[in-house]
Amino acid sequence: MDRYLVISSDCHAGLPPEQYREYVDPQHRDAFDVALPIQTEMIKQAAKKFLVADINEEWRKGVEQELTGAWDHDQRVKVLDGDGIAGEIIYPDGITEMNTPPFGAGISLPAENVVPELQWAGARAHNRWLAELCQMAPERRAGIAIVPILWDVEEAIREAKWAKENGLKGVMLPCRWGKEPAYHHPRYDPFWAVCEDLGLVVSYHSGPAPMEDYGEEQGMMGIYISEVAWWCARPLTFLIWGGVFERFPKLKVTITEGTSVWVPEFVQLLDFRYADTPYSSKLGDYTSHLSMKPSEYFARNVLIGASCMPRREAELRYEIGVENIAWGSDYPHPEGSWPHTADQMKETFMDLPEAEIAQMVGKNAVDFFGFDSEKLAPIVARIGPEKSVFRSS
Amino acid sequence: MDRYLVISSDCHAGLPPEQYREYVDPQHRDAFDVALPIQTEMIKQAAKKFLVADINEEWRKGVEQELTGAWDHDQRVKVLDGDGIAGEIIYPDGITEMNTPPFGAGISLPAENVVPELQWAGARAHNRWLAELCQMAPERRAGIAIVPILWDVEEAIREAKWAKENGLKGVMLPCRWGKEPAYHHPRYDPFWAVCEDLGLVVSYHSGPAPMEDYGEEQGMMGIYISEVAWWCARPLTFLIWGGVFERFPKLKVTITEGTSVWVPEFVQLLDFRYADTPYSSKLGDYTSHLSMKPSEYFARNVLIGASCMPRREAELRYEIGVENIAWGSDYPHPEGSWPHTADQMKETFMDLPEAEIAQMVGKNAVDFFGFDSEKLAPIVARIGPEKSVFRSS
Repeated sequence: MDRYLVISSDCHAGLPPEQYREYVDPQHRDAFDVALPIQTEMIKQAAKKFLVADINEEWRKGVEQELTGAWDHDQRVKVLDGDGIAGEIIYPDGITEMNTPPFGAGISLPAENVVPELQWAGARAHNRWLAELCQMAPERRAGIAIVPILWDVEEAIREAKWAKENGLKGVMLPCRWGKEPAYHHPRYDPFWAVCEDLGLVVSYHSGPAPMEDYGEEQGMMGIYISEVAWWCARPLTFLIWGGVFERFPKLKVTITEGTSVWVPEFVQLLDFRYADTPYSSKLGDYTSHLSMKPSEYFARNVLIGASCMPRREAELRYEIGVENIAWGSDYPHPEGSWPHTADQMKETFMDLPEAEIAQMVGKNAVDFFGFDSEKLAPIVARIGPEKSVFRSS
Repeated sequence: MDRYLVISSDCHAGLPPEQYREYVDPQHRDAFDVALPIQTEMIKQAAKKFLVADINEEWRKGVEQELTGAWDHDQRVKVLDGDGIAGEIIYPDGITEMNTPPFGAGISLPAENVVPELQWAGARAHNRWLAELCQMAPERRAGIAIVPILWDVEEAIREAKWAKENGLKGVMLPCRWGKEPAYHHPRYDPFWAVCEDLGLVVSYHSGPAPMEDYGEEQGMMGIYISEVAWWCARPLTFLIWGGVFERFPKLKVTITEGTSVWVPEFVQLLDFRYADTPYSSKLGDYTSHLSMKPSEYFARNVLIGASCMPRREAELRYEIGVENIAWGSDYPHPEGSWPHTADQMKETFMDLPEAEIAQMVGKNAVDFFGFDSEKLAPIVARIGPEKSVFRSS
């Protein structure tokens, strides 16, 4: 094969808000009608903060049609074909300010200021639609179900089983747990057991952060983008020390769009704390329930969704783990690689060993999310980037 | 000079709790009497969590006398002389479970579950005693005043001025701000102005972390020690992006006992976000108020108190900044280097360039905290570690 099998570990899809209505459970449609204009206004306000209007508009100019791939099957196929992407992992929030699921069930999945029952209703509505979208090209699309687990672990288990039965490949949990127990708490164990058993990937996607700390002061956005990856990766600290990967050795967890540059220091620090030191011995026994070093759990159980991966992350691949990196395009977000994916990939991967490029751009995600590479082969043969493109001579 | 001038950037001192009574404002002494047994019990509970009793007891065996240097002048001089330490920066909480200031005014300076007026009273009591302790050896002791700034910035300014007038060299602020505004908020500007003007160092000392997130689950202590340094360094993110070092170019901030291994990745990330990238441009302008890169503010305004600095931090010194590292012993804490300081320093600094060792073990702290090295010279000549000790051949 002279072309790479490319999977984007981070893409987004979502309906225009009003179209979610028919996917909402009937008993919540009145609430949906009341909430819709409020949501529209809130998203507009949030967009003002996170999206400079003129940059966003200029970015969209001339690609309006291609952006409808956020929900339209045919258009999505065209865009991904054009990017050379054979398969994709699909998170919510298509065009950020246009396609958020109802009732606060979007990518940031807040643990405060939501009505749990309604957030669940919004999540289920999105999951139903997403399952339909994925069924239109099941070999190419690994949909991630939204699961607001904090409110009800039993309900989360039911939704995970529903997701599996309906062809979805993973479950997205909130990065932040508010006042609910964090992810090392044993109450989540039955959920991990089901995900391990069904081979569902547990996903944490970057976005949420404690905005209440940042206020409206000058520079607050610099604070946000400097911290947001930490908040996304934080559940790993709890899962590793909590022994979750010890009890569920086949559980798969992905941390997406949180960069990967923090990984070497992160695993080194945890390993350092795992080893006996004068500092830690006074704190008692917090390691005997772990049969492996933290870095070993990371290597075995975690995949980093490296959205728009810069060259530096490729250069750090041995410290991060070549098998733990999965490139992503972040389509259709403006910070994503599309519509410059080919150029960005060249910059990132030029002249690296072919086998390692193959792992990072596709194979790792194929293995983790269970794509069928034989079924993808004809698509790759047609649209995959040629290997020669990543060689300078 | 064939000996190193050594300053410990991180030492602790505090009275046995009942002895704080006479330093508390008279109107708060009734509250003190009520609070004392409660505090004693709470510290006992906390100690159970953070100090394994038998390890702690074994560690103390035979050094009970030396540990009274936590509050006793003569004993303290002997211990520091024995360690080869000419000068020290002094934080609260001498022997952790024995010498915490009253009313929740200790090292973790909580922003919740305290009565602000009483926390202030406890802070002032400690500061008064600390000023006396430092006056007994003013050339060797740089005391750090406790300043619970969150409750009242005006009061914080008054306390900072009092600290300066009474010979203290810095002010310790809480690492965590609870529901109060974070450190990029302009309400703190008058305080930064006073600290800059008086040359008072602003200190954040490691310890506080969101224990409520960690619960009582197995492995929770692993989470704590993996995160605690991040919580201590976090104010830097707010100060840098908030433009505090832009508006107050001579403000000095130290982050203490939070390790230094995070520094290279931290400044690189902030610089990356400072540079224009596709990701950040959509977020609007959050850099034009900063005339320098984040790494440049760090290099100019920040000193890392590298307690019990391991060899690896010395090896990272160029990435961290040789001028930004100040070794510390953490006496009299059990995780500190004492009573094995000489051996630990050898392991850390062996065969590094002499001028760089001199910076890290003393000169940087001398410059930052304003020690008078001429006054220290006779002490160094008597007790300072010989330079030859750090050469293997």
